[in-house]
Amino acid sequence: MNIISSKDNELVKNIKKLKDKKYRDLENVYIVEGIKMLKEAIVENASIKQIIICDDCEKSDLISKEMMYEIAKYDCVYVTSKVFKYITEVQTPQGVMAIIEKNNRDKEINYDEDIIMALDDIQDPGNLGTILRTIDSIGLSQVLISKGTADPYNPKVVRSTMGAIYRVKVIECDDLKETLKEIKKNKFKILATSLDDSKSIYDIKYNKKVIVIGNEANGVEEEIVKLSDEKIKIPMLGKTESLNASVATGIVLYEYVRQKIKGTNK
Amino acid sequence: MNIISSKDNELVKNIKKLKDKKYRDLENVYIVEGIKMLKEAIVENASIKQIIICDDCEKSDLISKEMMYEIAKYDCVYVTSKVFKYITEVQTPQGVMAIIEKNNRDKEINYDEDIIMALDDIQDPGNLGTILRTIDSIGLSQVLISKGTADPYNPKVVRSTMGAIYRVKVIECDDLKETLKEIKKNKFKILATSLDDSKSIYDIKYNKKVIVIGNEANGVEEEIVKLSDEKIKIPMLGKTESLNASVATGIVLYEYVRQKIKGTNK
Repeated sequence: MNIISSKDNELVKNIKKLKDKKYRDLENVYIVEGIKMLKEAIVENASIKQIIICDDCEKSDLISKEMMYEIAKYDCVYVTSKVFKYITEVQTPQGVMAIIEKNNRDKEINYDEDIIMALDDIQDPGNLGTILRTIDSIGLSQVLISKGTADPYNPKVVRSTMGAIYRVKVIECDDLKETLKEIKKNKFKILATSLDDSKSIYDIKYNKKVIVIGNEANGVEEEIVKLSDEKIKIPMLGKTESLNASVATGIVLYEYVRQKIKGTNK
Repeated sequence: MNIISSKDNELVKNIKKLKDKKYRDLENVYIVEGIKMLKEAIVENASIKQIIICDDCEKSDLISKEMMYEIAKYDCVYVTSKVFKYITEVQTPQGVMAIIEKNNRDKEINYDEDIIMALDDIQDPGNLGTILRTIDSIGLSQVLISKGTADPYNPKVVRSTMGAIYRVKVIECDDLKETLKEIKKNKFKILATSLDDSKSIYDIKYNKKVIVIGNEANGVEEEIVKLSDEKIKIPMLGKTESLNASVATGIVLYEYVRQKIKGTNK
């Protein structure tokens, strides 16, 4: 079989292009790197289009025999370590990456869950990935994101999700406001996180609620705050009123978990 | 006055060196960048040794008149924009940085607070900074860190603290185990976060407790788990048992906040 050794190879050029959102959108695919991410993709039955393997790593111990057995079921392409270094985005590559089809065809909202998370312009890829991971950890199946949110298929986001990207359905809303209005018709109440004049997250009931998390610097957009049924906030004890967006999301979501486990919001 | 225009200038070389932990330790100083971080340093009365200003920014609108009035009270050095670009670590520099003395002389543990956080080998600078920020947000005055934890004065950590680095006393422990043994003598109980066979964080009382957060990949070191009085965990509802370390810390700390506000752990 052929081992790709040239940076001018079409596949290599294509993978390089996929670092850009424009091309990811055009081809409806994204890239994942590393053994753990690939393993999860296989387990979760993600739509793997191609697996790229560094020829040197094949001989190394990084990929186990069992893993190679699974990998070989897919369309595999081998590249030289020079080419792999050229296309990798991580500092210590594990010699394996995959092109995966986005899981975004179905945009139907699932109304069977207690809460629906909505992200209004979360900008930092690390924050977005960590939020997806947290949402996944409590078993929610979906998340709504506004147009101005970071691309969930950005390599840094994908990495921080630790596999949640395969399980959580990310619904990209052309106009989050309109989507929220639609959801209100389905008997959900909208809660917007906000600093001023808000109810404590420890005093609300998490049944049939949409919780909107705002942009790192500016919070939830004014128009969305206006259409919300309630403003909520995390009460703080320190001098600052400052929490990282993904930490804040975790605190809000796990108060839901606590209430669910304890069977009370007291 | 002189504007430094050469990369060979001693001060410029010194600032470059301070990117290395070795030199930060040697000189007991660290670097902060940006107007917000500098403003907080002034407000919090941090020990500012020198302020470096980009000569072009002086003419720009980024620094307000009031801010310049405050800045001028300190030892200020001007550099050309070429030199500033050479020494900056951020992508969109605001044209101002400062050399600040570390706030680490006093290593006394404050036993007057309900909880003491201890970090066992937190590796990721972003996680460490975000954890300091969360600790600050609930008004705790201190945090213990193990030898293997990321350097709290690393520029990326400093940035993610959003100013908490000036307020939270970071106590670097040569041997975290020994420090914890010492603390036990002061009637504090040690709680180690752990996945297996642990008590839910919603079933513990947060009075006179040390909470140990473990390394991102390996959790709390076995020896520390052994000397702990109880193992605690965050109950999850999803398929994975995976949370980002800074999110996990936020969830644990805000359960303390909730209990404090509600006056109960029920």
